[in-house]
Amino acid sequence: DGGFVFALEKRGYVKAGPWTPEAAAEHPESVRQLHREFLRAGSNVMQTFTFYASDDKLENRGQSLSFTGRQINEAACDLAREVANEGDALVAGGVSQTPAYLSGKTEEEVKAIFMKQIDVFVQKNVDFLIAEYFEHVEEAEWAVQVLKSSGKPVAATLCIGPEGDLNGVSPGDCAVRLVKAGADIVGINCHFDPETCVKTVKLMKEGVEKAGLKAHYMSQPLAFHTPDCGRQGFIDLPEFPFGLEPRILTRMDMHKYAREAYNAGIRYIGGCCGFEPYHIRALAEELEAERGCPPAGSEKHGSWGSALSLHTKPWVRARARRDYWEKLKPASGRPFCPSMSTPDSWGVTKGHADLMQQKEATSKEQLEFMYQKRSKC
Amino acid sequence: DGGFVFALEKRGYVKAGPWTPEAAAEHPESVRQLHREFLRAGSNVMQTFTFYASDDKLENRGQSLSFTGRQINEAACDLAREVANEGDALVAGGVSQTPAYLSGKTEEEVKAIFMKQIDVFVQKNVDFLIAEYFEHVEEAEWAVQVLKSSGKPVAATLCIGPEGDLNGVSPGDCAVRLVKAGADIVGINCHFDPETCVKTVKLMKEGVEKAGLKAHYMSQPLAFHTPDCGRQGFIDLPEFPFGLEPRILTRMDMHKYAREAYNAGIRYIGGCCGFEPYHIRALAEELEAERGCPPAGSEKHGSWGSALSLHTKPWVRARARRDYWEKLKPASGRPFCPSMSTPDSWGVTKGHADLMQQKEATSKEQLEFMYQKRSKC
Amino acid sequence: DGGFVFALEKRGYVKAGPWTPEAAAEHPESVRQLHREFLRAGSNVMQTFTFYASDDKLENRGQSLSFTGRQINEAACDLAREVANEGDALVAGGVSQTPAYLSGKTEEEVKAIFMKQIDVFVQKNVDFLIAEYFEHVEEAEWAVQVLKSSGKPVAATLCIGPEGDLNGVSPGDCAVRLVKAGADIVGINCHFDPETCVKTVKLMKEGVEKAGLKAHYMSQPLAFHTPDCGRQGFIDLPEFPFGLEPRILTRMDMHKYAREAYNAGIRYIGGCCGFEPYHIRALAEELEAERGCPPAGSEKHGSWGSALSLHTKPWVRARARRDYWEKLKPASGRPFCPSMSTPDSWGVTKGHADLMQQKEATSKEQLEFMYQKRSKC
Amino acid sequence: DGGFVFALEKRGYVKAGPWTPEAAAEHPESVRQLHREFLRAGSNVMQTFTFYASDDKLENRGQSLSFTGRQINEAACDLAREVANEGDALVAGGVSQTPAYLSGKTEEEVKAIFMKQIDVFVQKNVDFLIAEYFEHVEEAEWAVQVLKSSGKPVAATLCIGPEGDLNGVSPGDCAVRLVKAGADIVGINCHFDPETCVKTVKLMKEGVEKAGLKAHYMSQPLAFHTPDCGRQGFIDLPEFPFGLEPRILTRMDMHKYAREAYNAGIRYIGGCCGFEPYHIRALAEELEAERGCPPAGSEKHGSWGSALSLHTKPWVRARARRDYWEKLKPASGRPFCPSMSTPDSWGVTKGHADLMQQKEATSKEQLEFMYQKRSKC
Repeated sequence: DGGFVFALEKRGYVKAGPWTPEAAAEHPESVRQLHREFLRAGSNVMQTFTFYASDDKLENRGQSLSFTGRQINEAACDLAREVANEGDALVAGGVSQTPAYLSGKTEEEVKAIFMKQIDVFVQKNVDFLIAEYFEHVEEAEWAVQVLKSSGKPVAATLCIGPEGDLNGVSPGDCAVRLVKAGADIVGINCHFDPETCVKTVKLMKEGVEKAGLKAHYMSQPLAFHTPDCGRQGFIDLPEFPFGLEPRILTRMDMHKYAREAYNAGIRYIGGCCGFEPYHIRALAEELEAERGCPPAGSEKHGSWGSALSLHTKPWVRARARRDYWEKLKPASGRPFCPSMSTPDSWGVTKGHADLMQQKEATSKEQLEFMYQKRSKC
Repeated sequence: DGGFVFALEKRGYVKAGPWTPEAAAEHPESVRQLHREFLRAGSNVMQTFTFYASDDKLENRGQSLSFTGRQINEAACDLAREVANEGDALVAGGVSQTPAYLSGKTEEEVKAIFMKQIDVFVQKNVDFLIAEYFEHVEEAEWAVQVLKSSGKPVAATLCIGPEGDLNGVSPGDCAVRLVKAGADIVGINCHFDPETCVKTVKLMKEGVEKAGLKAHYMSQPLAFHTPDCGRQGFIDLPEFPFGLEPRILTRMDMHKYAREAYNAGIRYIGGCCGFEPYHIRALAEELEAERGCPPAGSEKHGSWGSALSLHTKPWVRARARRDYWEKLKPASGRPFCPSMSTPDSWGVTKGHADLMQQKEATSKEQLEFMYQKRSKC
Repeated sequence: DGGFVFALEKRGYVKAGPWTPEAAAEHPESVRQLHREFLRAGSNVMQTFTFYASDDKLENRGQSLSFTGRQINEAACDLAREVANEGDALVAGGVSQTPAYLSGKTEEEVKAIFMKQIDVFVQKNVDFLIAEYFEHVEEAEWAVQVLKSSGKPVAATLCIGPEGDLNGVSPGDCAVRLVKAGADIVGINCHFDPETCVKTVKLMKEGVEKAGLKAHYMSQPLAFHTPDCGRQGFIDLPEFPFGLEPRILTRMDMHKYAREAYNAGIRYIGGCCGFEPYHIRALAEELEAERGCPPAGSEKHGSWGSALSLHTKPWVRARARRDYWEKLKPASGRPFCPSMSTPDSWGVTKGHADLMQQKEATSKEQLEFMYQKRSKC
Repeated sequence: DGGFVFALEKRGYVKAGPWTPEAAAEHPESVRQLHREFLRAGSNVMQTFTFYASDDKLENRGQSLSFTGRQINEAACDLAREVANEGDALVAGGVSQTPAYLSGKTEEEVKAIFMKQIDVFVQKNVDFLIAEYFEHVEEAEWAVQVLKSSGKPVAATLCIGPEGDLNGVSPGDCAVRLVKAGADIVGINCHFDPETCVKTVKLMKEGVEKAGLKAHYMSQPLAFHTPDCGRQGFIDLPEFPFGLEPRILTRMDMHKYAREAYNAGIRYIGGCCGFEPYHIRALAEELEAERGCPPAGSEKHGSWGSALSLHTKPWVRARARRDYWEKLKPASGRPFCPSMSTPDSWGVTKGHADLMQQKEATSKEQLEFMYQKRSKC
């Protein structure tokens, strides 16, 4: 499914900053309803709302919660299963990167944290497991190894772009390591727009195939246009997280993404931050032939605006066609704003350090630089 | 509350084109949840989800529904009351413009249609009534007269800009006519962005005061930037309704709107199409001092990004201040798109006809023209 | 002819800031060549390069010059006549607003300054006289009265927009006063883009006709797009004067301007700052039928890109048609820049003061405000 | 010096399409004046205005000329020498790519064409020779060999970007081949903006140094921003050649370019199409310390807007500082236009063919693609 954390922040149940999922226990009706909407939009997987729900992260957020980590994880599993059963969906339990890894804890300690979450997933009998949102392939490998110990199928996604993880390991090498660690599905989630994510998954696929290995592929990009972001993705854009509206993808952008991802051999096609149910519906509508049926939600839609043929104004009715929406270059209504931004921090890459040293860095240079970085693999 | 029709379209329960509210009966959980989110965001009024729920409109939409108009209106009342009781909110029953009026039906026939909806509202004992989304003041007057017959307080909003209704009646004159017809609150909803709506309500207020009358004032604008639209508002923009994303207002834009509306003497400050719960929360947070308390949803927010101080990256923590977000000019991430569009149709105004005759109309001219129109009152 | 001051600044002979025309005496070959290029482009009038060449202005500029004001004015007359005689052009002597007026000198003193320049023009026997670039109609009236005393025809242009002169006198009233003072031709020069200038001249024409008077009309706008400037025009834009490049009008924009000006009844159609010879050539080409012949420079052009049919690449040859260039929305190649700016200073208007007092002024408001101002007449 | 062809097109002496330099003979005063302006702006080299002045090109242009190719070449030499002698400049004779090469003529035939021009340069005793604007390194090698036979120093520039010549030879390999053919100076001219040109020259320098060779380096970029163009450069942008105005570089952009080029080890720093005298002046002002003196034209300038301190309005005086202009993001005044375009033709690259085959090419993809291409070396 889609971007629970962002969607529930807008609905009033998640706090931007810590981004933790206590709403699963605190406001189950809000999480249940969002699951339902994604199911209706065509999602085949209900992912437990357990992002950042490791104990160390929950403690780290600096606020007392009324629920334990275990309670939150359990509630999330129950909600996902309840809604999955309303349709024909699988339930996936998810873990994500931990503060423990970043603060230099040992492999043993980090794995123990994952194990606690997985205990819940096993007990609640989810259908498969996802390790997602890792910036370092090493931590993702550890996660995969722990998840694999459950005996369930494992998917693993990194939040990286074409230039690789924060240690500079290329997407191809990352993918090979994840497959060797036991992942059945590998791919990308969050941090970049669909074009960048699909491109990065392609690099992963090339790496896996070159190594003589096999895997399935998945992508869960942002629903924001981010042609101007650097290695750390949209976090560094000055608009993150409260000024991203002008970058939101339209449903037409989603049609393109679905087709590109499918053509690239990706079969687990989803979304991350910014995805609302209608974005997922657009993916399902684009791939209706491949999926064999439209999503339930199409009852209230009609692909490519076809329901506009019922509008009262003739010039709006004239927009009820694919061609119109494919060609549209939507205006921002913001003449005082630029079309691209310069990321706030470029701190982690060597290239950036060089750039800063020269003291000659301009926006244009940064643009070039960023594209170089993206494509150098 | 906010933009039910648009929000539920994105969630999968309303069809763009007819935009009718059968979800109140078909999928009550979706409507109930959205009411809850707006309540949590600080809404003091739960408006029944009865937009376009007149019988003639429901029939007109060309699709058979499983529920009668009465059932839909009743379900909407029950949902609004149920959630209002979870907090401290009022319930308002709403009617909107009818196909009957546009097709030339008599005053008697049109009033009979309103009466059918009002029967339900009276029976369900809503707290007050709203006549909204009228392009012609005459039809709004008829609606007010019918609503007034219920003995309940009545609000009336037109979906017009500073140049007046589609017959050219100025906002000031419109307001006077609505007050004389019995409206306790007058104002504007839909079709234009907050700046334009506030400006138009100011003109209404001037008209009412000049006529020696008294009223309360309300505004329910779009959550889209529309500096480039013409007399019929955002309907005519080429992006309507599936390419409006780059125009979505941020929560910072909402703070500005709340303050401007308050300064203009408007005390019923809400939103229409495009408003999500977080937009309403931003209004409530801006006016926290005036309201006396923050909205419940601020528990998961913190005004002006203050919760970002918990973020892991220092440069994101540095964004946890009002100043940062006030100055931000958010980029669209769309370098191939313009910042303004030319409306599709200018058909209803004489000025437009002249323009077309000259066969020399350029985008720039249209821009000028539109601003002229806006400000000529 | 066109924008001597700006063109010669780019060529290296005029200093941005003081903008004085000593090049007429210091580097006559540069001024002569520019006259020739405008003549070749289709100019019918060679205007003496005597902008800001009043003695008080020349002294005021804080730098010693090797030539007296009289020498500069004489040299400018000789150069204009020399080139005019190479073709079929008239010579016009020009005066502009004086520091004397702004510093509160008396009518007598200000008129004495104009008289000194006019002495030269009379002695050099120019064909007619122009009083141009006045922000206050009162000073322009004084200039016209002095010019008229020469017995030669007099043209008078103000550098104002639709909201009137800096004292708030409307364009219509300004025009009436200038005609009554003796001007044969009235109009607008500098400070605003062609659309705004043509619009303002229309207001002047309406005023003159309503007063039962008669005049000819002229326009000499900027060759920069300035939809975002305030009452004082492009001076207040943050890009003035060294960042105006992205605003430069194309030759296609010039075709539109020529046609609009002609349709508005303007028969003295020229340009001011930013105009290069090719801009004037585009005006002459658009009005070829009305003028009876193409400009000499069309020998090296071909209207609307027709000479591109000789290009080596087929897709460039395909651009050799009017339709292509009319529809083109040229990109800036600057994705980090906005499309509109907020003027630096709004100081002179009451409306602005109000705006500042509210302490709530946003860019959007300013945009609205400025359009209001433009169209309120 | 700078962009004669484009500058003289705007002044009325060169025809866009064929772009041939017959003005040297037809209108010598126009060419002489432009030479003078560049000399005054700080140019140390007067390049003969002999672009595309090979006999086969002049014949090819489909129009009869009153002068022979020899006469044009001779006139251009005389003008360059005349003005060079007014200052302290060298004269360089230039040849450029020929239609003969493209139509498949033999090495012998192509070299014979160059020899005819060089005869004139030798007879007129220019100081050195330039082979410029070659899209294929092979033809450039032939030109260098012929030029070298004169015994004079030879510079050679290609109009390519980082991805190499139209046969896919990389910039590094191109440079090595040109040095081996006898070029003393190698570099890039035309087709791309300064950033891209400097980047490409860096690649040439790396290639030359890796091969253990030595050379001097030069760059003569466009004065247009072209972040969005493909392998064939600005020719393929839809704005070429009559809608490029919004892309024109400011003098502040020129300061950046001069510094970047100097830092990259480039010592022959100039410009091509779009450069006006004030652009060259900005280069000379940025490098004043390195050059040892300001250009003569600075008498009427003052680096970074310092002369604005004489302006009458205080907020304009406040712009008389480097910091102001460095930070300015100049607006286009064109809210209906995008900031980037999609090139018309991508025909020559394999990557493009692939892209077209997929029938899924979007603007965004093309952007990515183009940046990939640029940086893949």
